[in-house]
Amino acid sequence: MTFDLKIILVEPLYQGNVGSVARAMKNFGFYDLTLVNPCELKMEARAFASHAYDVLEGAKIVDTIEEALEGSDVVIATTGITGLKVDEHIRMPPYTPRELKEKFSGTNGTVAVIFGREDHGFTNEELKLSDVIASIPTSEIYPIMNLSHAVTIILYEMSQITAGENCLADGFDLRLLYEHIDEVLDDIDYPAHKKEKTHLMFKRIFGRAQLMPREVQTLRGFLGKVQKHIK
Amino acid sequence: MTFDLKIILVEPLYQGNVGSVARAMKNFGFYDLTLVNPCELKMEARAFASHAYDVLEGAKIVDTIEEALEGSDVVIATTGITGLKVDEHIRMPPYTPRELKEKFSGTNGTVAVIFGREDHGFTNEELKLSDVIASIPTSEIYPIMNLSHAVTIILYEMSQITAGENCLADGFDLRLLYEHIDEVLDDIDYPAHKKEKTHLMFKRIFGRAQLMPREVQTLRGFLGKVQKHIK
Repeated sequence: MTFDLKIILVEPLYQGNVGSVARAMKNFGFYDLTLVNPCELKMEARAFASHAYDVLEGAKIVDTIEEALEGSDVVIATTGITGLKVDEHIRMPPYTPRELKEKFSGTNGTVAVIFGREDHGFTNEELKLSDVIASIPTSEIYPIMNLSHAVTIILYEMSQITAGENCLADGFDLRLLYEHIDEVLDDIDYPAHKKEKTHLMFKRIFGRAQLMPREVQTLRGFLGKVQKHIK
Repeated sequence: MTFDLKIILVEPLYQGNVGSVARAMKNFGFYDLTLVNPCELKMEARAFASHAYDVLEGAKIVDTIEEALEGSDVVIATTGITGLKVDEHIRMPPYTPRELKEKFSGTNGTVAVIFGREDHGFTNEELKLSDVIASIPTSEIYPIMNLSHAVTIILYEMSQITAGENCLADGFDLRLLYEHIDEVLDDIDYPAHKKEKTHLMFKRIFGRAQLMPREVQTLRGFLGKVQKHIK
């Protein structure tokens, strides 16, 4: 029974930040780092990693977020821009790092936390890949934190999680559930322009609810029965 | 009724760290930075401060910790080396950042948090100036955090404090109390080699207890009466 944390940096721009993140990870006992299409990593990254060069050298380097997320049961995206309510299903509601800790205490599974680029964060398309949104409460005057500082806060909270009995639903099964929901939306001629938002709403609700494996199966059974009656 | 936080860096060695600390402070809404005998601060410090150059430029630069601490009611020293029990009254017991937050919620006064050098932390003499010791719970394998990461964790917790009715005892009055204790130790011919440890023990106890102004006066009254009966 373990709680595994994967840290994923999406297209980090500065090698010093990547090294600093590796150091913070080792400080809090985490080792699973994945870099999506990162900047060049040379001496500066190593200098900032200090005694965590093993975490830096062990980092997986991949081309896409999708590859990075393989094997994760839950995907948490961290974003600094919580004031924006441009599309509330994309960004809302955000959890604080403390709430994340409370939410995942007593669970077991693999949780990925993804961090966006230093300058532009995530695209909306990228945010849609996440089940849960997290945001660090900062001053409105200057909310944009250094990347490694933001990672450090998340790690500080997540390091206080103790794994427990509650098994998180398998990420693969969840993807099947979301595909199933899309099928049903098609079956009931759901308005095309609302489909994506509603898909995302379900994802956010189930993300917050932390579905258990059995609940995923029951939901799929329910959807199957709905489909049978439609046809 | 306010809770004021002063961040004090003692002889920081790397200007990038000083800049990063300024940025983290502004991220969490803090502006009072004091640097004791810092490294040279040039372009790199400014680059790392990013939009917090106002915090960096507003930093007070002083020659001694004592100067930096003027006007503080409580002094918290952060140290990474909690495993060491070389002198338990110097370092023990350490509070976690979360415990600090809980401890100071509902109080008002000026609290200084001091951070040591990147390489050697604090000397024991410096640690004796603090009322409370804090330590961030990290992995035993690699406990030494980057300076700005450690500051960020402390700021993250302290930013969640809301000031309240409980007025912290004035730092000046506390110093008079500790001097009074030393007087009494002299009056009762306390063994010279134990005097400093006992002084420090009182400081740690009263630091944990967060004395109220009236309690400081009552304690001094008590000590005065003790002295009268001795003489």
